[in-house]
Amino acid sequence: MALRDSHVTLAHGGGGKAMRDLIEEVFTSLFQPPGMEDQARLTSAALAAPGARLALTTDSFVVTPLEFPGGDIGKLAICGTVNDLAVGGAEPLWLSAAFIIEEGTEIALLRRIAATMADEARAAGVRIVTGDTKVVERGAADGLFITTTGVGVIPPGRELSAAAIRPGDRLLVNGGLGDHGATILAARGDLALSTDLQSDCAALGHLMAAVLKAAPGARAARDATRGGVAAVLNEMAEASGVGLVIEEEALPLRAEVVGLCEILGLDPLYLANEGRLVVVVPEAEAEAALGAMRACPEGAGAVAIGRAVADHPGQVRMTTRFGGSRIVDMLVGEQLPRIC
Amino acid sequence: MALRDSHVTLAHGGGGKAMRDLIEEVFTSLFQPPGMEDQARLTSAALAAPGARLALTTDSFVVTPLEFPGGDIGKLAICGTVNDLAVGGAEPLWLSAAFIIEEGTEIALLRRIAATMADEARAAGVRIVTGDTKVVERGAADGLFITTTGVGVIPPGRELSAAAIRPGDRLLVNGGLGDHGATILAARGDLALSTDLQSDCAALGHLMAAVLKAAPGARAARDATRGGVAAVLNEMAEASGVGLVIEEEALPLRAEVVGLCEILGLDPLYLANEGRLVVVVPEAEAEAALGAMRACPEGAGAVAIGRAVADHPGQVRMTTRFGGSRIVDMLVGEQLPRIC
Repeated sequence: MALRDSHVTLAHGGGGKAMRDLIEEVFTSLFQPPGMEDQARLTSAALAAPGARLALTTDSFVVTPLEFPGGDIGKLAICGTVNDLAVGGAEPLWLSAAFIIEEGTEIALLRRIAATMADEARAAGVRIVTGDTKVVERGAADGLFITTTGVGVIPPGRELSAAAIRPGDRLLVNGGLGDHGATILAARGDLALSTDLQSDCAALGHLMAAVLKAAPGARAARDATRGGVAAVLNEMAEASGVGLVIEEEALPLRAEVVGLCEILGLDPLYLANEGRLVVVVPEAEAEAALGAMRACPEGAGAVAIGRAVADHPGQVRMTTRFGGSRIVDMLVGEQLPRIC
Repeated sequence: MALRDSHVTLAHGGGGKAMRDLIEEVFTSLFQPPGMEDQARLTSAALAAPGARLALTTDSFVVTPLEFPGGDIGKLAICGTVNDLAVGGAEPLWLSAAFIIEEGTEIALLRRIAATMADEARAAGVRIVTGDTKVVERGAADGLFITTTGVGVIPPGRELSAAAIRPGDRLLVNGGLGDHGATILAARGDLALSTDLQSDCAALGHLMAAVLKAAPGARAARDATRGGVAAVLNEMAEASGVGLVIEEEALPLRAEVVGLCEILGLDPLYLANEGRLVVVVPEAEAEAALGAMRACPEGAGAVAIGRAVADHPGQVRMTTRFGGSRIVDMLVGEQLPRIC
């Protein structure tokens, strides 16, 4: 225990002994491999398979507050990057994690977040193999930002792509929508609202593997983070040039989320999720895919919410509870800053 | 030109159209491949070679000011990550780039920085294949932070490691020390100093390739960033268990750097560099390695600064101009925050 400070100081970012102590005690002692290097050197037979491709994805996490019901920024950082790999059909292998820490941040908080990251990575079957820490002066960052980058392997012949979506395909989601966005909003405390909401934050690698086994013809998948399910559906409609129709009645929405949205004038279709995805499968494989999702803890609430159609190419429409139809457009700006 | 704003707003981070416009116009239009995806899918025959290993490295850049003589944060972000790959013996292939942007940042500044990144990546022979942007409120970050992660391939049989250093080996550097740290210090303007200093920021992939060709027995290399040459030498001494001796007289130091250090009571051995490395080679290959370095623009000022010895294992000592000897320890804290 060379680390005697209770809060991070600028010395912890200076490249000297203080930095090494912080990194070793708080981060690398929890991550694998124990002797995490500046440069990780890795082998995987999967990458050498003829026709295999490497998948690479990165995300910065700036969520506030850093800890919230159902997770913290570290859990988000692991799950978000695992999910970006998984929805593209990649098997997640390795992660890097870079920390930008504001001077004055509690070291106990960093330890909790690092522990969450180690747990989540283990559960998701990925290894955190390299990292970086920088410390900035008080006021130059807001507590902690984490950037994770993920490397995965896409097995030969697997090709998920929104461009492959065809009329008749079914749109599936793995559970209640908007829980993460609503949780963060409530956790900020500006509203003096008390809810039982928990973030849906979860790693979806195992669920995606199960879906692809049950529905080998799956066209595309995408996790519905910033911009919510509405953004994902619009991107899919645009990339494929088909129309998408969702049924308002079929949308899985918790009463608390609906209530919060009504009070605040928000639309749950645009709320961020961190453990929810949209999977598009051919009609013939829809039941098998739903069954596979429901057999996973992260997919217990899986339902079909709509389908692809030949009409209104590139556009997303929703059939309302009252039988009407409205366009679900992409949001121009943002509903909630720093949701992830 | 869908982007009409002159400054970044929170809407540019919200996952909607405004974010897409910012990303497409400022970043992906300059980076390769033109249709940069959320998840890059990549193939490389080099990765499939039997015995090849994948190298993965990440760094966050928080330098202030964002632009300085000889570079900007974007150049640092490309060079820093290319160098981390190169000094480990990896051939740099792909980069990811994640941007945390403070609300109110000038879009023209982002365009300049993105252009530098594109130019540097092209020159270094790497591709920026995926990225992310987040926007935080005014005051929650200081202008712009960039995190780059690099993937490279280590050819079969190549094994650079500080643990391989043996007594008798020579310590080489590729040019003047401390230019980057001194430049940033002067550029902050607190000192009202006017200098002709330029950051040494440079990508060292081509230089490392030339060194490894000329000196196939090279033991180890390391770029001397935070903590300077002193930190690198101490890490090498510790990892190898040999002693290292450097000659004060041999250190390549610009008069401006020495002057600035004298005024401020700093030691140039601890100043950060962003285009300087320490290479350790067997005595027999030292001249060939120096010749190869000097043939590269980034190595024109290459010199030998010392050697590994059997004495004082794990310790770095400097023979002073006056024939004395002093211990060069690792710094405990930091000399200058936010130098990279």
